[in-house]
Amino acid sequence: MATNRQWLYAQKPSGQVGPEHFEMHAATMPEAGPGEVLVRTTLLSIDPASRAWMAGRTYRSMLQPGEVMAGWGLGEVISSNSPKFSPGDRVSGEFGWQEFIAVPAARLTKHDKRHPPEHILGVLGITGLTAYFGMLDIGKPRPGETVLVSGAAGAVGSIAGQIAKIAGCKVVGTTGGPEKCAWLTNEVGFDAAIDYKQGAVARKLKEICPEGIDVYFDNTGGEVLEAALARMNLWGRVACCGNVSQYDGAAPAAGPLGVPGFLVTKRIRMEGFVVMDFYNRREQAETALAQWVREGKLKATVDIVEGFEKMPTALAGMFAGQNKGKLMVRVG
Amino acid sequence: MATNRQWLYAQKPSGQVGPEHFEMHAATMPEAGPGEVLVRTTLLSIDPASRAWMAGRTYRSMLQPGEVMAGWGLGEVISSNSPKFSPGDRVSGEFGWQEFIAVPAARLTKHDKRHPPEHILGVLGITGLTAYFGMLDIGKPRPGETVLVSGAAGAVGSIAGQIAKIAGCKVVGTTGGPEKCAWLTNEVGFDAAIDYKQGAVARKLKEICPEGIDVYFDNTGGEVLEAALARMNLWGRVACCGNVSQYDGAAPAAGPLGVPGFLVTKRIRMEGFVVMDFYNRREQAETALAQWVREGKLKATVDIVEGFEKMPTALAGMFAGQNKGKLMVRVG
Repeated sequence: MATNRQWLYAQKPSGQVGPEHFEMHAATMPEAGPGEVLVRTTLLSIDPASRAWMAGRTYRSMLQPGEVMAGWGLGEVISSNSPKFSPGDRVSGEFGWQEFIAVPAARLTKHDKRHPPEHILGVLGITGLTAYFGMLDIGKPRPGETVLVSGAAGAVGSIAGQIAKIAGCKVVGTTGGPEKCAWLTNEVGFDAAIDYKQGAVARKLKEICPEGIDVYFDNTGGEVLEAALARMNLWGRVACCGNVSQYDGAAPAAGPLGVPGFLVTKRIRMEGFVVMDFYNRREQAETALAQWVREGKLKATVDIVEGFEKMPTALAGMFAGQNKGKLMVRVG
Repeated sequence: MATNRQWLYAQKPSGQVGPEHFEMHAATMPEAGPGEVLVRTTLLSIDPASRAWMAGRTYRSMLQPGEVMAGWGLGEVISSNSPKFSPGDRVSGEFGWQEFIAVPAARLTKHDKRHPPEHILGVLGITGLTAYFGMLDIGKPRPGETVLVSGAAGAVGSIAGQIAKIAGCKVVGTTGGPEKCAWLTNEVGFDAAIDYKQGAVARKLKEICPEGIDVYFDNTGGEVLEAALARMNLWGRVACCGNVSQYDGAAPAAGPLGVPGFLVTKRIRMEGFVVMDFYNRREQAETALAQWVREGKLKATVDIVEGFEKMPTALAGMFAGQNKGKLMVRVG
């Protein structure tokens, strides 16, 4: 009898997440009930937010040990009890870390096959939409302004920075290690990159951005946020996308100095967002992103790990800073 | 020969500001040069921002020891070399802590004498404008929402809270001591007040606002800001007006936990503002504020200290939480 391999979330990490917090489980094959669709997972997305879901309630309830680990995926319809889907359709949804899932049709999105499958989970999916709405609707960069992006070599950061370039800005990124810095400036088109692991972020920002920072797209919180606030220009905007410097620690560090002091004196707007709030304009964003990719203005780098069994090590590797661009796992 | 008494800023405070940081100086009487106006000061405003001006650069350069202490005032024109002003005119401006000033006409605002003079420095002046634009343009309260104001018994806070009441909101204030709490609920019309000096602000907020907070008008930063962030509703707004909990200390405390974590997950907008940015709409605000005062919807409480010699003790008293409403000193 065929089984459905699942990665269960086994244990709440008290510090860095690793394979020991997950458990492989062989479940029985699911069957599509009334109105449901049976999907075979082909690609699973690895996202920093996963770590936040383990730590507490976010924009979703906290993950509970014993549950199938949550995550977004791309798959192929095997069988369907819904008139909206047929076998062979390419679909995405919140599949969780498992090879098969039976899911209500309403929770699936169908994708045409023009685009490479990895782009659907990357630049044309939640990753790209997050960068698009966060940069343009929250950050609101104007041509000629200076934009800083933290976590710049990551999935969202690398797209967000390129969108700011397309918008006519000077773009600076922070990331960990000289290799990713070189990649950002040589391959992705950032104007400058700062290796936060070398320290002195505040001083380097001052050297690289003597004109100050107008928009900061914050994926990390922590030290880079604090340094950015000190360098923000009057009426600067901070688009708060994530707080990855805090996800993988035992306890939250203190909040950034300069809040609310700099916010008042420099009239800074600091605004958090979650991509789901913008889904009513999803099509507009997808169209723009697809066109920029087609025109070669937007490089959608993908980092694919082969094999479902590598899910936990892929997630741990992301927090160790091993990936460039969008990290995903090819299932089977 | 007549002298012009001045309070000089003598020494940078390392902690709480007190009379020892100022020095009385008898200067010679100023004379109005070409295009200038000689003004006799009648009322001087005491503002929390003064302390921030001593600590470092804000939206203005840092005060330097030896300078006449900066501050806003109301006065009467004694003589004028400008066709725009005549002796007897009531004017306001940044006079500094002194009895007389010769000032270029362009730096004066003329006021008609319909309104009580203390309102010009209070509810119809920078204080009222700060509350008006901060609450309505940054906080954007909607009827039925819950609004929290810190420093609620102060000049700006007491007006900001009443504007939120006029906008149809439930309004809660934080202040120091049971007497000011009672004043807020019994006299000013707040729905509830929390004495932050009793501690447990987070727990009390939870009891008083089980529905969460939609708008937080922040005059204080510090503990109340941190507690408010934890209680903010989705899409909540924090209008950052001041950081008074940090002005009078030796070193800045750590920033608030929950930044940027709560900002992301709850899509909070946190935005600083300075009233000068809204001066192009000054008339609109003054008209509205004057009308609310006339209709009895807005209580503009004034706390007047008699005597120019009491300027430093009045400022120290404000940081000790002694005033209710707008604090000012009547000169001579």
